[in-house]
Amino acid sequence: MKGAMLYGPRDVRCEEVAEPKILKPTDAIIRLSASCICGSDLWPFRGLNPIQTPMAMGHEYCGIVEEVGGAVTSVRPGQFVVGSFCISDNTCPHCRFGFQSSCEQREFMSGAQAPLARVPLADGTLVATPDLPDDDLIPSYLAVSDVLGTGWYAANAARVEAGSTVAVVGDGAVGIMGVLAAKQMGAARILLMSRHKSRQDLALEYGATDIVSERGEKGVARVKALTKGVGADSVLECVGTKESMMQALQCARPGAMIGYVGVPHGVEFDGAQLFYSQRGLMGGPAPVRRFLPYLMDLVGERKINPGKVFDLTLPLADVAEGYRAMDERRAIKTMLRV
Amino acid sequence: MKGAMLYGPRDVRCEEVAEPKILKPTDAIIRLSASCICGSDLWPFRGLNPIQTPMAMGHEYCGIVEEVGGAVTSVRPGQFVVGSFCISDNTCPHCRFGFQSSCEQREFMSGAQAPLARVPLADGTLVATPDLPDDDLIPSYLAVSDVLGTGWYAANAARVEAGSTVAVVGDGAVGIMGVLAAKQMGAARILLMSRHKSRQDLALEYGATDIVSERGEKGVARVKALTKGVGADSVLECVGTKESMMQALQCARPGAMIGYVGVPHGVEFDGAQLFYSQRGLMGGPAPVRRFLPYLMDLVGERKINPGKVFDLTLPLADVAEGYRAMDERRAIKTMLRV
Repeated sequence: MKGAMLYGPRDVRCEEVAEPKILKPTDAIIRLSASCICGSDLWPFRGLNPIQTPMAMGHEYCGIVEEVGGAVTSVRPGQFVVGSFCISDNTCPHCRFGFQSSCEQREFMSGAQAPLARVPLADGTLVATPDLPDDDLIPSYLAVSDVLGTGWYAANAARVEAGSTVAVVGDGAVGIMGVLAAKQMGAARILLMSRHKSRQDLALEYGATDIVSERGEKGVARVKALTKGVGADSVLECVGTKESMMQALQCARPGAMIGYVGVPHGVEFDGAQLFYSQRGLMGGPAPVRRFLPYLMDLVGERKINPGKVFDLTLPLADVAEGYRAMDERRAIKTMLRV
Repeated sequence: MKGAMLYGPRDVRCEEVAEPKILKPTDAIIRLSASCICGSDLWPFRGLNPIQTPMAMGHEYCGIVEEVGGAVTSVRPGQFVVGSFCISDNTCPHCRFGFQSSCEQREFMSGAQAPLARVPLADGTLVATPDLPDDDLIPSYLAVSDVLGTGWYAANAARVEAGSTVAVVGDGAVGIMGVLAAKQMGAARILLMSRHKSRQDLALEYGATDIVSERGEKGVARVKALTKGVGADSVLECVGTKESMMQALQCARPGAMIGYVGVPHGVEFDGAQLFYSQRGLMGGPAPVRRFLPYLMDLVGERKINPGKVFDLTLPLADVAEGYRAMDERRAIKTMLRV
């Protein structure tokens, strides 16, 4: 079969790779209904996370179970399933505490930019729909696997609740999904920091009430002005740079939580400053598995439409163009037909 | 009247000071039923927070209202009141959000190691009891003003709930009050890190289930061993040093919140480390005012006895000995008869 392999900076190829096989009795093989490219795939694509050997790309997936190992009991061939980018057993203490992304057996998914993928710990990782979904729902189910699950976690970690005023820092796909999540959680006001028209439009459709196009000090001042000088009740940090984190901290009111899901690069916090400004922090890799059943229901009942975040769809053969389009911000997120 | 003044490192004196007067129509003057020395008073006493001019000490207080300014409506002369060490209007957006310690009009109380004290913003700051309390309850009401309120906030910020496993770092008066708070919130297991017999005994009386006398790596290992390798659901950091914060972070399980109330001295957090270890943080000066009515009720109904944290009582004239006893850890907390 063909799969996406990254060879080095800006060198991603669609090439012949071995079909995955059941390696452990807890594995499943799934035939992907679609795959996609993640913002985090751009770190190694840009050479910022150096790689030693060619790397099988892709960790977002949904599809039909093709085969299961002898120990798998909760899913069976023929079922449509979604899984998290974090492999988890869903039974260890960390999973039971709702932090499956810190599972004692955690692995990160790979090789999902391909028609077939091996999913370890299938019982803990995969969730099946009651019936096979309509084709038009595939993009939304695919979004649940990571980008929506991560935006949802950001809002959950930031303790968004009914009536909240929420600021979202970052208009990437995760930030936009954070807007959708905040809206679903009942936020009264959702401020998105963005200077890209297509992203603003989608965010407004998902429930953003205000767009802040200024950055840095001016962006903070604008958020303050829009909140009568108070700041946001909850802030979703969906970038991971020093600048974006400072912006998040300064947009928050005292007592606010900042849910941060952008992988921090060069971010440090001063204890005394955090103490006196009284901002709270909770972040990390999203425990998508915690939210999977609920979010899959919302998609199945057509209550949310996160699949609209894919504004470019390409055949797997054109995967390199998909990466470039996201890298150059021509596309919010690229779906791949596999 | 006599009051405690700090002149420089280890130089605290009980000397003649001017009686406080109503300066603003929102002020109240209260006649203190008792006063006390705070762990945070030891920072300037030790010379670690240098001072320029002699400083009127004391910020914990309860007593009888002596006089109120013309704008005060919620308390009247003759009532017994408790206030927070943070002066707040209790009406601004930060106060209404429950973070009165970040009140737009915040001031820090001072001059309460004396028989009379001026309390600004009396309506927002003071809470009266329905009747005059019995004398034996005075130490407990006094404790609510700061040390219990701060320990309570640490547990609240750490999201302690029924059935939680809680680790408390620091066996100062605040840490011991944190034990009491966690117990009241229904924690199933409360681990206190302490190597002082008298403090251990009091903490056990307040509900600690396990004492960890090891420190550093060994202390962390012991907490892990006591929690089957998992770590604590909630951690209360009640010291503020780099070492104690590291201990707190490492004793926590992924997804746990660390409520930190020790004023950070030299504490920094690495963003990526905090992200991948998935520890949450919330801290700062305690918004005691939020908890004041509830905690005063618990004291009035004799459901809690935080006043036992005062293991040394001295006349105000001996205030210097009170500081020394706490500095040398001969006393957990000193009450002053004023």
